[in-house]
Amino acid sequence: MAKAAIVMGSDSDMPVMAQAADVLEKLGVDFEITVISAHREPDIFFDYAKTAEARGVKVIIAGAGKAAHLPGMCAALFPMPVIGIPMKTSDLGGVDSLYSIVQMPSGIPVATVAINGGTNAGILAAKILSTSDEALLGRLKEYSENLKNDVVKKADKLDQIGYKEYLAQMKK
Amino acid sequence: MAKAAIVMGSDSDMPVMAQAADVLEKLGVDFEITVISAHREPDIFFDYAKTAEARGVKVIIAGAGKAAHLPGMCAALFPMPVIGIPMKTSDLGGVDSLYSIVQMPSGIPVATVAINGGTNAGILAAKILSTSDEALLGRLKEYSENLKNDVVKKADKLDQIGYKEYLAQMKK
Amino acid sequence: MAKAAIVMGSDSDMPVMAQAADVLEKLGVDFEITVISAHREPDIFFDYAKTAEARGVKVIIAGAGKAAHLPGMCAALFPMPVIGIPMKTSDLGGVDSLYSIVQMPSGIPVATVAINGGTNAGILAAKILSTSDEALLGRLKEYSENLKNDVVKKADKLDQIGYKEYLAQMKK
Amino acid sequence: MAKAAIVMGSDSDMPVMAQAADVLEKLGVDFEITVISAHREPDIFFDYAKTAEARGVKVIIAGAGKAAHLPGMCAALFPMPVIGIPMKTSDLGGVDSLYSIVQMPSGIPVATVAINGGTNAGILAAKILSTSDEALLGRLKEYSENLKNDVVKKADKLDQIGYKEYLAQMKK
Amino acid sequence: MAKAAIVMGSDSDMPVMAQAADVLEKLGVDFEITVISAHREPDIFFDYAKTAEARGVKVIIAGAGKAAHLPGMCAALFPMPVIGIPMKTSDLGGVDSLYSIVQMPSGIPVATVAINGGTNAGILAAKILSTSDEALLGRLKEYSENLKNDVVKKADKLDQIGYKEYLAQMKK
Amino acid sequence: MAKAAIVMGSDSDMPVMAQAADVLEKLGVDFEITVISAHREPDIFFDYAKTAEARGVKVIIAGAGKAAHLPGMCAALFPMPVIGIPMKTSDLGGVDSLYSIVQMPSGIPVATVAINGGTNAGILAAKILSTSDEALLGRLKEYSENLKNDVVKKADKLDQIGYKEYLAQMKK
Amino acid sequence: MAKAAIVMGSDSDMPVMAQAADVLEKLGVDFEITVISAHREPDIFFDYAKTAEARGVKVIIAGAGKAAHLPGMCAALFPMPVIGIPMKTSDLGGVDSLYSIVQMPSGIPVATVAINGGTNAGILAAKILSTSDEALLGRLKEYSENLKNDVVKKADKLDQIGYKEYLAQMKK
Amino acid sequence: MAKAAIVMGSDSDMPVMAQAADVLEKLGVDFEITVISAHREPDIFFDYAKTAEARGVKVIIAGAGKAAHLPGMCAALFPMPVIGIPMKTSDLGGVDSLYSIVQMPSGIPVATVAINGGTNAGILAAKILSTSDEALLGRLKEYSENLKNDVVKKADKLDQIGYKEYLAQMKK
Repeated sequence: MAKAAIVMGSDSDMPVMAQAADVLEKLGVDFEITVISAHREPDIFFDYAKTAEARGVKVIIAGAGKAAHLPGMCAALFPMPVIGIPMKTSDLGGVDSLYSIVQMPSGIPVATVAINGGTNAGILAAKILSTSDEALLGRLKEYSENLKNDVVKKADKLDQIGYKEYLAQMKK
Repeated sequence: MAKAAIVMGSDSDMPVMAQAADVLEKLGVDFEITVISAHREPDIFFDYAKTAEARGVKVIIAGAGKAAHLPGMCAALFPMPVIGIPMKTSDLGGVDSLYSIVQMPSGIPVATVAINGGTNAGILAAKILSTSDEALLGRLKEYSENLKNDVVKKADKLDQIGYKEYLAQMKK
Repeated sequence: MAKAAIVMGSDSDMPVMAQAADVLEKLGVDFEITVISAHREPDIFFDYAKTAEARGVKVIIAGAGKAAHLPGMCAALFPMPVIGIPMKTSDLGGVDSLYSIVQMPSGIPVATVAINGGTNAGILAAKILSTSDEALLGRLKEYSENLKNDVVKKADKLDQIGYKEYLAQMKK
Repeated sequence: MAKAAIVMGSDSDMPVMAQAADVLEKLGVDFEITVISAHREPDIFFDYAKTAEARGVKVIIAGAGKAAHLPGMCAALFPMPVIGIPMKTSDLGGVDSLYSIVQMPSGIPVATVAINGGTNAGILAAKILSTSDEALLGRLKEYSENLKNDVVKKADKLDQIGYKEYLAQMKK
Repeated sequence: MAKAAIVMGSDSDMPVMAQAADVLEKLGVDFEITVISAHREPDIFFDYAKTAEARGVKVIIAGAGKAAHLPGMCAALFPMPVIGIPMKTSDLGGVDSLYSIVQMPSGIPVATVAINGGTNAGILAAKILSTSDEALLGRLKEYSENLKNDVVKKADKLDQIGYKEYLAQMKK
Repeated sequence: MAKAAIVMGSDSDMPVMAQAADVLEKLGVDFEITVISAHREPDIFFDYAKTAEARGVKVIIAGAGKAAHLPGMCAALFPMPVIGIPMKTSDLGGVDSLYSIVQMPSGIPVATVAINGGTNAGILAAKILSTSDEALLGRLKEYSENLKNDVVKKADKLDQIGYKEYLAQMKK
Repeated sequence: MAKAAIVMGSDSDMPVMAQAADVLEKLGVDFEITVISAHREPDIFFDYAKTAEARGVKVIIAGAGKAAHLPGMCAALFPMPVIGIPMKTSDLGGVDSLYSIVQMPSGIPVATVAINGGTNAGILAAKILSTSDEALLGRLKEYSENLKNDVVKKADKLDQIGYKEYLAQMKK
Repeated sequence: MAKAAIVMGSDSDMPVMAQAADVLEKLGVDFEITVISAHREPDIFFDYAKTAEARGVKVIIAGAGKAAHLPGMCAALFPMPVIGIPMKTSDLGGVDSLYSIVQMPSGIPVATVAINGGTNAGILAAKILSTSDEALLGRLKEYSENLKNDVVKKADKLDQIGYKEYLAQMKK
């Protein structure tokens, strides 16, 4: 049975949303993924958001850009946590998406992550589910450990070859 | 039969929305006015927006603040023009409301007016209806003429009493 | 006889303004289109805006960038609705155009759409005219239906091939 | 045993953080609350964040203003969800706090709510815990129902007394 | 014969515009002052701007707020320098006025001063006229000398009484 | 004898500053042009700005980017008008340069033009000098006439070939 | 002999600058304090900045608002560290001051602290001097210890009386 | 023994941080350089910052992007000056990094330089150390002299070949 749901307002958001899917897969979290526009097909959207709980969804990850209403409207219809990803926009850099998602009125929160923060949305969903899933929490701790090891390796490499050589290798 | 509909997401928006109502009344445009939250009562909102056309509504004026989704969701459900009023906010000045309303994705426009622009929203609704109502167009022209005369009177007064006296009278 | 007028301050705005023209054509709305600068040829502009009503124009779509005065000045001279399109700018992203168009003083509204929102401006113009044109309203509903179907098709495709394959096809 | 933890960087944030506490109490969620500065007492903070899991904390609500590092540093040390509340600031309105909290790098998400969004932070914490607590989920649905009823009552009142009288009563 | 013209879009701008008038008076520059709205009375405005040269005006100081078009439209019609004063606005702080005035397209410059910069607009107008008026240039140099002396006096006072006493006297 | 002076803080500003030079040349205004950094060589800068009047300079055009102090420091030292050009910046788009130039304190105005507005700075300098130079004023009117004719030609072309063909030709 | 110098562009900055003086006094750092305007008295300013080293000054704290040039010009003339304090402004909140101070071009850094950050500027000056003054470093560590203890006391109080009583006492 | 420490949150910041290293090398200042993430490896980071003083570090240069907490957390743990470099970001241009670094709360200053200001961070570190190192101060003055000479050479070249040829050579 699905645990997380990923929904985007437009398939142009796919590259960012796929990051969320990838990390959920890596962390062993079941998920469903679809494209639904709250603006272009409000009826389908309403039905989707209202039946999510019955489908076993415990957390929704919704991404949208510009006047981004999808996460907020999910939060109006779905009783459990909704995570919002503000998409970067070509004109305003994504500050329009960010404000449209994070500045929700009292009573209907959206858990907002960084602009284009697909990976972080996936991790946050896993963290939410980990509050009642010891095994998932263990995998999350392992994931964090790996992040740490990656930085340690870079620091070691820098220490060995010096910053000039490090920079030179980056530019290749 | 009603022609314009005024809807706000919270009754704290009333002072601005009442400006729209006042100018519609002055211009002789029928209207209905209510408080509906797309976030707090999505079902009621859906029903309201979908039946508006059947109630004879030709244009909706929707005001909302912060992550303002009401105008955009009206535009997703109502086939004729929706006018959005971004409310001033105490933290971001209303730029959050403005972006949430004006930056609509392709296919679902919202006719956005200035932050706290209640009067202009009412005038714009009347202008929209005036495209098929000669009498209303006449009243709109008269309204504009009055605006002009107000400025002319101020210019005359300034000419007569000078800027120092004018300023002194303003400060009283 | 023409119903909508499209006017831009510079022919560099053409790619965005052509979107408005395209959608008006698709929706069967008559329109005229021209380039007029309120700044560089104020007399020609004045004459244009003042005679628009007599030419049968019911709504003007005006696009301009930076310190964008064209839409507001149209609204000062033309008694029916004026739609403003803020052009994206290379330095400030279009926030300058947006503020210059949307923040109109009381009495002279401009119906503002998103930055570079050419298509939405065309749709909004059609929606305005549809308040007294049942056939046009029908075509608008059909247009919305098509938008919806496009999303449904994408959702179906995503459902069938999965997000990894979907993303892979997008990158090709 | 405690379930949620509320932590603020300065006691000047108390009015906003108390909103989170109030709603947690109303929803029957156990919580602890304290003042800890990641900047002024990093050792105490480290110890606090690292031992939170052992104290039974499943979600942390962290509020901070300006260059707000508290939520992000919590997220670096605590393996389950961290909710960040950006405090309104007197000079930049809170956009500094917002950016400092929401724009977290990949791997360490903070679930950000609106500027000064204390109530929403509390609700979000409850929603997170409700993913494994049917009774709490029920209380959350009831809470939403009450929000809805409040708006319905206002709409009814507006319908009965008209907007002019409604506005007059607001101003008293 | 008048040399400078002061024009404002609304008499609410008078407190700022009066600063310009005051400094022109102090510097011995002739000026006319009036209220004209480019939006509310475009015909009167056009006539005003086009006849300014014939009235002996060599420089126009135009103040306006929000979507501030008055300075730019003056610059489109008047061949000599136009100085623009962006008015502070209650929602966006005046950044809307600033962008609407300073970001003029190529060919039609407006000499923009600071938000609410009435005094500086007056000084700039005098500086422009001083390019061909030795006596006025002398008075400007004297004005600058006085500015300098004011600061010197404050520095001397601070030196004598110390910053604590200085601050105490300011708070009285 | 030179009449206008063009000064830039860095030779990377040359492409924009050259626009000012080009239009001054076209309008027959004498000018000098140099690179001086108020930050990197304050003594040379001081000497330059203080001796400008003696060299016959009547107006300075100063361009600078980021924390742009050159225009303001020119205005502190040179008694006649200083025009400031804010340079576009790669990170903040030029809003840093704009604020650093336009928001001058009372007493020391800088006549600010648009971001990267080299041509407008040149025209404004010419307009300033035209307040006492009839021949130059005539050339400025001619320049404006040409701007107008350019737009008229584009409008005629658009009228003849239609917007689709016009757009197609632009894309070539 | 003086070690730190505090300089402000206007005596209206005194309340913020006095915070810097207070903390320097508390930390036992000698300082001089004055009002000098780089714009209104450039010669006096030049002399002041150039002779600072000879007066024994090792670090300058400069505060200024709007188009704030004082810190940057100090940095152009004084060879050791300059700390800049951006003043809060009534229209733009101080973002103008911030950009004018922090965005210095390559070669001339200004050590910028928060908007209105008088106390932090003083502490930073002391930290700079503490790099060669063990006793001062000791006093700085003690100062930090006190900051920590203040927070600990608040946390203890909150723990004892609960957040409701704590909040009630704050509101008195 | 090392005097300055350069630390970055991610090796993607290396191109900017290497500028700091380069200028320190040029000025003859000893330094260490590493990659440490306050978010991904808080324990390692804590140890690093707390032992820096014992390693002989007198000043830390910390660069980070987005919700940049590294400089501020260094300042919480290290008693001497911390210089912060806000990294340019692809969506918000670096204003997020800037606010996250510069807006530090009272008691814990970070000496912030311009966005991507690697060179200036290195110079500032050297200036800080020069307060007790006459030889270094001498090298800094020489560095400034060279900056000045570079501009003088450009001015001379411009004087000789004219701006058109200068621009032409730049475009090659």
